[in-house]
Amino acid sequence: MVTGGARAVARCDELGVAPYSDSTDGLFRAYLTPAHAASLDRLGGWMAEAGMSVRLDPAANLIGRYEGSDPDAPALLIGSHIDSVRDAGRYDGPLGIMLGVEAVAALGGRRLPFPIEVIAFGDEEGSRFPASMLCSRAVAGTLEAGAVDVADRDGVGLIDAISTFPDTSGDFYSSRYKSALAFLEPHIEQGPVLEAEGLALGVVSGIAAQLRYQVRISGKAGHAGTNAMHLRRDALTGAAEAVLAVERIAREAGGDVVATVGRMAVGPGAVNVVPGEVEFSIDVRSGDEALRDFTAQRIGTAIEAICGDRGLGLTIEQVQDLGASPCDPKLTALLEAALVEAGHPARTLVSGAGHDTMVMASLCPTAMLFIRCEGGVSHNPVEAVTAEDADAALQVIRRFIDKLGANYVG
Amino acid sequence: MVTGGARAVARCDELGVAPYSDSTDGLFRAYLTPAHAASLDRLGGWMAEAGMSVRLDPAANLIGRYEGSDPDAPALLIGSHIDSVRDAGRYDGPLGIMLGVEAVAALGGRRLPFPIEVIAFGDEEGSRFPASMLCSRAVAGTLEAGAVDVADRDGVGLIDAISTFPDTSGDFYSSRYKSALAFLEPHIEQGPVLEAEGLALGVVSGIAAQLRYQVRISGKAGHAGTNAMHLRRDALTGAAEAVLAVERIAREAGGDVVATVGRMAVGPGAVNVVPGEVEFSIDVRSGDEALRDFTAQRIGTAIEAICGDRGLGLTIEQVQDLGASPCDPKLTALLEAALVEAGHPARTLVSGAGHDTMVMASLCPTAMLFIRCEGGVSHNPVEAVTAEDADAALQVIRRFIDKLGANYVG
Repeated sequence: MVTGGARAVARCDELGVAPYSDSTDGLFRAYLTPAHAASLDRLGGWMAEAGMSVRLDPAANLIGRYEGSDPDAPALLIGSHIDSVRDAGRYDGPLGIMLGVEAVAALGGRRLPFPIEVIAFGDEEGSRFPASMLCSRAVAGTLEAGAVDVADRDGVGLIDAISTFPDTSGDFYSSRYKSALAFLEPHIEQGPVLEAEGLALGVVSGIAAQLRYQVRISGKAGHAGTNAMHLRRDALTGAAEAVLAVERIAREAGGDVVATVGRMAVGPGAVNVVPGEVEFSIDVRSGDEALRDFTAQRIGTAIEAICGDRGLGLTIEQVQDLGASPCDPKLTALLEAALVEAGHPARTLVSGAGHDTMVMASLCPTAMLFIRCEGGVSHNPVEAVTAEDADAALQVIRRFIDKLGANYVG
Repeated sequence: MVTGGARAVARCDELGVAPYSDSTDGLFRAYLTPAHAASLDRLGGWMAEAGMSVRLDPAANLIGRYEGSDPDAPALLIGSHIDSVRDAGRYDGPLGIMLGVEAVAALGGRRLPFPIEVIAFGDEEGSRFPASMLCSRAVAGTLEAGAVDVADRDGVGLIDAISTFPDTSGDFYSSRYKSALAFLEPHIEQGPVLEAEGLALGVVSGIAAQLRYQVRISGKAGHAGTNAMHLRRDALTGAAEAVLAVERIAREAGGDVVATVGRMAVGPGAVNVVPGEVEFSIDVRSGDEALRDFTAQRIGTAIEAICGDRGLGLTIEQVQDLGASPCDPKLTALLEAALVEAGHPARTLVSGAGHDTMVMASLCPTAMLFIRCEGGVSHNPVEAVTAEDADAALQVIRRFIDKLGANYVG
C-alpha cells in the first residue's frame, strides 16, 4: 500500500520534469510560466480528488478548499510555494503543498469546525521577477503599493505576464485574506541539523534575524617577487584572518548562531601581485536578535584589531538588518505536542532561511514543520526526502489538525 | 650644476609623456610603436652627444657604441629596456639606459681597453606581443625558432610590425652577439627593501627561483542560514587557513624567501551561500632554490593538514618552475667593491622579479645594480627615484668601469 507520505513525494517527483519544468535540463519552474500553469492543472486535479473545491486567486495562487462544519469560520491554511529556483530540487516548496493535500484526503470526508485551505503560492523564490514572496504578501495583505511594477529579465512586466496567465484577474491586492485561523507550512529543512541528530522532523520556533555587512580591507599592492614578507601590507592575509575570526566567533556564540563569508573579491588579483584590496560579505543570523547583534559586534571588533595590527585600512558597511520572525508560541506548542504524541523527540529549531511563514505571520498565527532532507542539500537537483519522513510529517500534521479542532472555540 | 644622475632622471621624465608615450593618459610605451620610435630618436641624440656612434639592430634595439683602445675587444654592455607596461612609471627600464649614457659621457673621451655599448632593449615587458624579453633573447642568441611568430591583440604580427619600423631589418636572429665582455644592468629595485634599510643602492646577487601552484579546495556549498557551524565544510575558511600558512611559513623560512597568494576565486560566491569551492594561486621565490623548494614543500604539507582536519578536498598543481639565475660572482664582487669604495654599506640582495640580466647570462658574465625607489612602488605612475640616488648609482657604475678596465687582460 502506498502511504500518503510516499504519494506526496511521488507527486513532487512527477512535477520535477517537463511539462512541469520550464527547462528540459533540470527543474526550473518560474512564476507565471507554462510550467507553472501545467503544474497548477495537475495539482488542481489532486486537490479535487482529495475532496476540495479548487480556485485560482488573482495572484495565481492555487487554493483547494475543504469545507468545515461552520462555513463562515476562518480557515486553517496549509501550504507552501510551487515555484522553484533554477536547477532546483523537487521538494523545496511543493512537498508542503502535497502534504496539505494528503492531510485533507486522509480526513475522508470528516469535517472539522473550520474549513481547511491548501494553498500553493505562485512565487516565493523570486523565480522570475526581482521580488520574492510576492504571492504570500498578496494573501497576507502586505504587498506594498508599486510592488507589482517589476519586469522579468526579458523586460516582460509582472502585470503583463499575469494577464496572459489562464483564469487570473491579476489584481494582486484583492488576493488579500480578511482573516485566517492559522497557517501551517511543512517544508524541508534545507540544512543538515535534523539528519545529524537522527531526527525525521523538527518544529520551527521562528525565522532567524539576519545582518549583512560588506567589508573592504585595503593594504598595498606590490610585486610578489620584490616585496619582502616583513614589509608587506597584504590585504588578503588580513582578510584571511578576518574570515577565521568570523568562523571562530560564531562557533563561540553557540546556539543557533551562524556567520558566513560567502563572497570575496581579491584585487588586483594577479598571481604575481601582493593583494592590495579585498572585499567580502559577512552574513550573521540567529533566532535571538540580541545574540546575533552581540556576535556581529564581536566580529567587527575582531576585524578592526586584525587590520590595526597589520596596518590595513578597513571599512565595514551594514547592508541588511532583518529582524527575527518568531512563529506563534501557542500554535507552535500545539505542533510540538503533535510531534511528541506521534512518537518523535521534541526538537525545535530556528530556520536560518526565509519562508512564506514569515510573511503570513502578519495575517494569522503561524507554525512550521521541518522535514529532514538528505545531507541538508537544497536548491540542487540531488535534494532528497524519504517517503518515510514525509509520511511521519503527514501523521504529525493530521494530529495537529485534530488538536486544533479539539481546541477550537468558534 | 646638474649632476649626471639628475640628468638621467630628468631624461626618464622627459620620455614619460607624448610623443614618447602611446597614451595621453599616463605612460605606455609599447614595443615597435610610434612612441618607441620617438623615444629611440631622442635617446640616439643623447648617445651621440655622449660620444657614441649609434645603430639600430635588427630587433630594434638601440645601441650606442663608445670605442675602446682595442677595437676588436669584446664590449662591456650597459643597459636595460626602453619599453613599459601600461600606466607605467618612468624609471623601470629607462633609468638603467640613461645611467649608461651618463657613465660614457663622464669618461670625457678617455678610452678603456674595451669598447662600451649602451643598449636599449626594445621589449622586456611583453608590452605589445605575448612574449617578454624578446630583444635581450635576440641579443643573447636564445630566441627559439618560431618565437617571433606572434601577433599583438589587434592581430598585427611581430614581423609585420617590425617591417614598418624605421631602419630595422627585422631579422631577429641576426641581432645575436658573438661575445661580450660583460653586461651590467642598473635598475630600480621595484621593492621596498633598500628604502626600509635606509640604503640608496644594492648589488643583486641573482634573480630568484620561482615556483607557482594552482590550488583548489573543495568543501560543500550550502545555505548560509540553514547550515549549522559545526556541520559545515566551508572551502573558504579552509583557504583562509591556507593563506595564513603560506605567510607564516615564508616568514619562518627567513632570508629572501617570499610567498604570495595573489589570486583567489570563491565559488559559488553568493552572500548567503557557504563557499563550496575556492581556487587560488601560490607564488614562492628565493635566490636559493633549495630554500625555495623546502618552503614550498612545507606549505604543501601544511595545506594538506588543514584540509584533512576540515574534511575538505584538495588538489595542488605546480604550474611553473623557474630556476634561480645567479649573477656572475666575480663581476658581482667587482660591483660590490665599487659600491663600498663609493662609501655605501655592502648590501647584496636577490631580485624577486625577472630582468634582461637573466637572459644576458647566456651570453656573458652579468651584474646588476639596484637603485632605491620610493615606497618600493613600481608599474605605477607614482614610481619615484631621487636625483641623489641616481647620481650615487652613476658614481658606482663609473668606479665599476674603471675597475673592469684595471683588471682587463686583453
